[in-house]
Amino acid sequence: MVDFTPAQFAECAAQIVEAGRDFAQRGWTPATSSNFSMRLSADRLAVTVSGRDKGKLTPADIMVCDLAGKAVDTDARPSAETLLHCQIYRRYPEAGAVLHTHSLAQTLASRLWAQAGQLELAGFELLKAFAGYTTHDARMLVPVFPNSQDMQELAELIDRYLQQKPITHGYLIDGHGIYTWGEDMLSARRHLDAFEFLLNCELELRKMQR
Amino acid sequence: MVDFTPAQFAECAAQIVEAGRDFAQRGWTPATSSNFSMRLSADRLAVTVSGRDKGKLTPADIMVCDLAGKAVDTDARPSAETLLHCQIYRRYPEAGAVLHTHSLAQTLASRLWAQAGQLELAGFELLKAFAGYTTHDARMLVPVFPNSQDMQELAELIDRYLQQKPITHGYLIDGHGIYTWGEDMLSARRHLDAFEFLLNCELELRKMQR
Amino acid sequence: MVDFTPAQFAECAAQIVEAGRDFAQRGWTPATSSNFSMRLSADRLAVTVSGRDKGKLTPADIMVCDLAGKAVDTDARPSAETLLHCQIYRRYPEAGAVLHTHSLAQTLASRLWAQAGQLELAGFELLKAFAGYTTHDARMLVPVFPNSQDMQELAELIDRYLQQKPITHGYLIDGHGIYTWGEDMLSARRHLDAFEFLLNCELELRKMQR
Amino acid sequence: MVDFTPAQFAECAAQIVEAGRDFAQRGWTPATSSNFSMRLSADRLAVTVSGRDKGKLTPADIMVCDLAGKAVDTDARPSAETLLHCQIYRRYPEAGAVLHTHSLAQTLASRLWAQAGQLELAGFELLKAFAGYTTHDARMLVPVFPNSQDMQELAELIDRYLQQKPITHGYLIDGHGIYTWGEDMLSARRHLDAFEFLLNCELELRKMQR
Repeated sequence: MVDFTPAQFAECAAQIVEAGRDFAQRGWTPATSSNFSMRLSADRLAVTVSGRDKGKLTPADIMVCDLAGKAVDTDARPSAETLLHCQIYRRYPEAGAVLHTHSLAQTLASRLWAQAGQLELAGFELLKAFAGYTTHDARMLVPVFPNSQDMQELAELIDRYLQQKPITHGYLIDGHGIYTWGEDMLSARRHLDAFEFLLNCELELRKMQR
Repeated sequence: MVDFTPAQFAECAAQIVEAGRDFAQRGWTPATSSNFSMRLSADRLAVTVSGRDKGKLTPADIMVCDLAGKAVDTDARPSAETLLHCQIYRRYPEAGAVLHTHSLAQTLASRLWAQAGQLELAGFELLKAFAGYTTHDARMLVPVFPNSQDMQELAELIDRYLQQKPITHGYLIDGHGIYTWGEDMLSARRHLDAFEFLLNCELELRKMQR
Repeated sequence: MVDFTPAQFAECAAQIVEAGRDFAQRGWTPATSSNFSMRLSADRLAVTVSGRDKGKLTPADIMVCDLAGKAVDTDARPSAETLLHCQIYRRYPEAGAVLHTHSLAQTLASRLWAQAGQLELAGFELLKAFAGYTTHDARMLVPVFPNSQDMQELAELIDRYLQQKPITHGYLIDGHGIYTWGEDMLSARRHLDAFEFLLNCELELRKMQR
Repeated sequence: MVDFTPAQFAECAAQIVEAGRDFAQRGWTPATSSNFSMRLSADRLAVTVSGRDKGKLTPADIMVCDLAGKAVDTDARPSAETLLHCQIYRRYPEAGAVLHTHSLAQTLASRLWAQAGQLELAGFELLKAFAGYTTHDARMLVPVFPNSQDMQELAELIDRYLQQKPITHGYLIDGHGIYTWGEDMLSARRHLDAFEFLLNCELELRKMQR
């Protein structure tokens, strides 16, 4: 069942390529880390092929898979972490783009708040950059999950959390990086920008408050 | 009453577009935050339309409003924070440009000195970048106001401060950013550069002095 | 005995020139520090000529020497540190490229862990960027050797260490910088990127953990 | 007495313009701070005109003055700080270029070591970037002078220091920035790069050593 057009795929691939180049320039995708996806239809997503340099993607580095993470009409292998993308699309039908990056701030925050299991962002005007937040006078909880090389195990851990409460609009994995999403690429990138800024705020404050 | 020429508006719009692009490159306008304005006449200002990406402004993203913040000859909506720009133009007739940005340093300084209500900058050669300062041997007080989503409330708070003493040439809002101004765009940008540099100095010193 | 082609030399020189330009832009080669090499054959390497600005290299700044560090078919002088490159190529037959840089993070880490003699990197997803590492749940030891202007002495110190245990895939010299290598330039650069990222992580954590 | 050619002046002006642009890009010349000069002859120097944006210099922003700081064949006004440039050229006949910049690190270091009156740089490989230093195993003393708006007073303070001991190859002024020099622009820039790197090292170490 093909329920998206080649033009739709081409447009998603172009947006993913551009995002990768911008993030790489800011140092958020060291080595060949990070992966990105966009929803093509109810059951299909466009996702980066495993192991590519995310700053130099071309449309040939983007492939299609289904919401179970299975490659569609290609022998290419999606990132092992594609399962986590699928989980987000299944849980949040309104999600149109998922971004996973690896900046220094994301890595540091994940390590420092790993034991607490979550990080609270509160009182910042920039919270208004997140969908559904209309005031600085708000508290956002960012869960921090332990890292695992077993994506099934990691997905189950996140599922158990989601059964308790929703996640708005991202989570950290210890020593690893961030996952965030939005209704489209623009919105996912706005969320990623806001997380990066606010995580840097929390890290800098931690250096100065004594 | 139109008391400015289309050429004047075009020149102001061009300067605002250029400023936005430069500030965005330095990371001072995360998400769609920040707003900028220039005075067109005694009662008119050119100001950014609400919600645009400040790094990618075009002249179509600049609109005219009066000193009460009311849109003139357009259906576009100025930023909610336009009221604060108006307040500055009313209070300081010599002010020709107002800049509001959101850098990491501005946000951090606003949080760290929020409780004190003000931050003192003293002894730096770069104080001479501010209009009226001719020596490093000077003290500048930068007020830090609590944040509010109610611009009327915020404007009144700042008015009460201004009834006590003048502000040279900027103030911080907690968790939010800076407002600074000057007799023209060049002067306002020089003040913004100097604030950014000196706030970074104070933050770094706070990390090292123990 | 010439056992490589002019085309091979040209290709290596081009990769070294490009690496130098990229590293210089990131501030990893202050003044005329740093040096780079690639293996041409079992007994020949292409290496930077002594004292050049590493951000502005041309193929004329790359020369050939043998695995004892002796210039081949040229009057140019290789960097004094070429001996350390040779040592790596002799010890690790699979090594195809060696990079020595001088970033702030590399210099700082070398000073802070000089007394301990080594720095441990553990628990980071990015460890998987290193050849042979397949999980974040690993420990990598980075030796830190005291600096010396006598390359013979320094090489012997490193040899004694290597007689005890292998080095994967880099070491620091106190107050000086890093040496890292890989089977080809791509792999050596991936290792260098990962070291730079992880050293910055360790330095930042040191500022925040109290 | 004109003892230099127009071609010499043009060459010096071009080197000063290029240096200013590079330093501005790195954020070392906030607002209209900083000034640069080159020696034209035993008694003449090319120096930046007062108050210009150092990132956007043209040859028209460079003027000639004598070693007493007096403008030659022009109504332009040299920077007030030109006296300090002249002092260096008189004291060090081999000096061919003098650079004064204002980076964050230079400003911070000047404040933190102002009371001690000097900062020691020791044990860094990069000390070898300074003329006359051939090993990392060396100690360089960088004097830190109190700031003054009276250049005559400042020059006398520095003269008294120089009567006690030489300065290799730069000094800081509290809250203000650095002066460094070299036999030509290349050498002065190498010294400035090395100071910037080493001052950053000392500042970062201060944040981490506890």
